[in-house]
Amino acid sequence: MLTSTTLSSTPNGWKAAITLEELGVTYETVAIDMKSNQQKEDWYLKINPNGRIPAMVDHTKNDFCVFESGAMMLYLCDLYDPNHTLLPEEPLARSKVMQFLMFQMGGIGPMQGQANHFSKFAPEKIPYAVKRYIDETKRLYEVLEIALEGQDYLANNQYSIADIASFSWVKWAILLDISLDEFPRVKSWAERIEARPAVQKGMLVPNDFGYNWLKQVAAEKN
Amino acid sequence: MLTSTTLSSTPNGWKAAITLEELGVTYETVAIDMKSNQQKEDWYLKINPNGRIPAMVDHTKNDFCVFESGAMMLYLCDLYDPNHTLLPEEPLARSKVMQFLMFQMGGIGPMQGQANHFSKFAPEKIPYAVKRYIDETKRLYEVLEIALEGQDYLANNQYSIADIASFSWVKWAILLDISLDEFPRVKSWAERIEARPAVQKGMLVPNDFGYNWLKQVAAEKN
Repeated sequence: MLTSTTLSSTPNGWKAAITLEELGVTYETVAIDMKSNQQKEDWYLKINPNGRIPAMVDHTKNDFCVFESGAMMLYLCDLYDPNHTLLPEEPLARSKVMQFLMFQMGGIGPMQGQANHFSKFAPEKIPYAVKRYIDETKRLYEVLEIALEGQDYLANNQYSIADIASFSWVKWAILLDISLDEFPRVKSWAERIEARPAVQKGMLVPNDFGYNWLKQVAAEKN
Repeated sequence: MLTSTTLSSTPNGWKAAITLEELGVTYETVAIDMKSNQQKEDWYLKINPNGRIPAMVDHTKNDFCVFESGAMMLYLCDLYDPNHTLLPEEPLARSKVMQFLMFQMGGIGPMQGQANHFSKFAPEKIPYAVKRYIDETKRLYEVLEIALEGQDYLANNQYSIADIASFSWVKWAILLDISLDEFPRVKSWAERIEARPAVQKGMLVPNDFGYNWLKQVAAEKN
């Protein structure tokens, strides 16, 4: 067993789990119960000083800790993807992947996260904030739509961690009532990614909570 | 002249400019006027489909375009830092830098950006949102404070793009009335970074607008 991966069934958790599955890394899962704020407990803060999920510990590297989902994906590629299947070695192709990975890390992730907060979880309904973040999420999806013009994947027309990262968020669009019918290329791209066995496995780590929630929301809409 | 760098005098613009200055890359600056929404013009969207600053074009690489400040920093290190002065080559040390770079990209940048929006720019005052984002910015600074325990820089006790990235945002804390006196290690770290000639130069690219604004806010407080 190479790594212990601490995560929950959320978009950022999926990013880590899908990458582990794609690379066939042997890992143990430690489910973090965010309802009881387990991610703020001392033992966890030693792994991730930011107190959020996911994070991991590489037992083959003197228990080296990695936090931030984007950094975990990169770490896994740098150490456990000798054939560069998820991140090209050539610098320009690699940069294209990094550009879209950063776009997800700094854009889709935080903005869709805020949209979720103000739409679903905030104690008060604040129409300005709900609109701000849903509009921004859609604007960012439009950037994906443009990037997918003439290619099947976001960078170099080749499946990579950039696709895993944005897919893991786009799959949750249904929570915000954002229909992928508005973004036809993004819709086909997401279906293409979801068809991969490693992706289907990753979406069920550490459990089927997130996956089933999304299925239920979809069923209620129909 | 290696690259044309399109930016404005903002935290993300500084990240790119400081990295260019540190590495001694020859570059031309194209100032983007965000008040007239130049970053949404067609010519610019060809460089950065996301329509935000900064971005760059590498004229020595067949006009290869790079967007997202974090991806620009990485690109510059991968191509123009043969001695690995800003990003170590050894995978674990490199990962530590990437973890804090991602922490800035996904955390400090977007959250402090939202704090700026709701404190300074939003058309309505929404106390819940102002508090949410200022509290989160402070929480993230506390993570930096912890990371700096026993070391002068965020990763490997060695100056890197992770420091440039977070410094470029922390320097703007004054806009939110966040005092670095609350975070003494972060305060010394920021002073240490600001003392570097390349950092001082980078903060004046493409012009002194941001730098002077912060100086003026500081003067008004005293």
